[in-house]
Amino acid sequence: MKNYRMELSYDGTRYQGWQRLRQGETIQGKIEQVLSRILEQNVEISGSGRTDGGVHAKGQVANFHANTNMTVEQITKQLRHYLPGDIGLLSLEEADARFHARLSATSKTYVYTIWNGPCVDVFRRKYLWHLPADLNLEAMTEASRAFLGRHDFRSFCANPHMKKSTLRTITGCDVEKDGEEIKITVTGDGFLHHMVRILVGTLVEVGLGRREVAEMDGLLRGGPRSLAGETAPASGLCLWQVDYE
Amino acid sequence: MKNYRMELSYDGTRYQGWQRLRQGETIQGKIEQVLSRILEQNVEISGSGRTDGGVHAKGQVANFHANTNMTVEQITKQLRHYLPGDIGLLSLEEADARFHARLSATSKTYVYTIWNGPCVDVFRRKYLWHLPADLNLEAMTEASRAFLGRHDFRSFCANPHMKKSTLRTITGCDVEKDGEEIKITVTGDGFLHHMVRILVGTLVEVGLGRREVAEMDGLLRGGPRSLAGETAPASGLCLWQVDYE
Repeated sequence: MKNYRMELSYDGTRYQGWQRLRQGETIQGKIEQVLSRILEQNVEISGSGRTDGGVHAKGQVANFHANTNMTVEQITKQLRHYLPGDIGLLSLEEADARFHARLSATSKTYVYTIWNGPCVDVFRRKYLWHLPADLNLEAMTEASRAFLGRHDFRSFCANPHMKKSTLRTITGCDVEKDGEEIKITVTGDGFLHHMVRILVGTLVEVGLGRREVAEMDGLLRGGPRSLAGETAPASGLCLWQVDYE
Repeated sequence: MKNYRMELSYDGTRYQGWQRLRQGETIQGKIEQVLSRILEQNVEISGSGRTDGGVHAKGQVANFHANTNMTVEQITKQLRHYLPGDIGLLSLEEADARFHARLSATSKTYVYTIWNGPCVDVFRRKYLWHLPADLNLEAMTEASRAFLGRHDFRSFCANPHMKKSTLRTITGCDVEKDGEEIKITVTGDGFLHHMVRILVGTLVEVGLGRREVAEMDGLLRGGPRSLAGETAPASGLCLWQVDYE
């Protein structure tokens, strides 16, 4: 069995997320279906992590094991031919037997895009959150710094029954404005369910003046979900990059 | 009656083009429907020109006459609220009574985008022509220069029964490559039906080595449509800008 590593981009709009489901279209399900047909065997792929329904990816990484005489170039060509237009195979290569897209990942970067003007860019409308309100960027930037470091992000986890540790380390959290576009870039060693979207929703509440920057520290002590802000819409979120050793 | 000028962007994917039809969704039809409802009167808009089904616009200009007590700000807000997500109102302002979006235009710029790599950018897949073949950019650039100036573009007109003059002046025709993206930018005083798409299709045939650069001059003497190349797909075309005095 060879181990293959693939890098993928996708427009998540019409999918119920990454993870295969019994019913409904998912990214993982679609790729496995196409790959299994090409390789004439049952193939299961492991992603670096799940993305929610409607969330996009610019650089998702996955791996799978298969036994085939087809070359990497042949599989690449077939995959690109048979995958739907909203799933793009950026690269496919043979990987070390020990490589695992999720377990080998050292950090992940998500980018969340807000369109902060009255008239949304029609060509990117499905890849952003249209929020034409006045936002205090300075306060948002200041608040974003509170997330840096190792904290208990329980208040930023959508799963109320989460039994495992909710400690995560955030190594980068930047708020940048370019014209009418605001990009929030978050890098960390792992993310809880909805974590980036709740983090963005909380920063937006700071930007709107509904929360104080000083409140942030209190949200990072493992309190209930209700302490943090609303969950920002899925459409603005994109899994940007997954890093490995 | 006041005269209003509007600047629009649209994702033309799901429309049968700019021009209002009895049946089928069109950009003009959709805007007129919304505008007539907002202003409670029958409003007809004039665009700087038609765009074909599936063609996009980043800076289409249109004007309309109406009698209303609503302010420009109020109309803008209502339009932005009621127009569908794939039509964006960039600006609305009162214009001089003599302003006419089509007749006052002095030149127009179209941008055609080709994705010249094996893996298309999934987020822009509806706004380009995916053509992963080897293209000779130098030959295309050289060929593009032949179009500059005043020529009879009859071979580049999809309407075989065109009775009016097919003379047009092209003031700019550039081929640029940036990574896997090729942009062909064409500026002129007016364009015939499918003219830019046939021009791009012809340049691509040069790029593929199926035509010689030296053939270009012979295509610009008012010969039949069959002399020029194939019509490039609508999805890659975008009306970029309309210029006025």
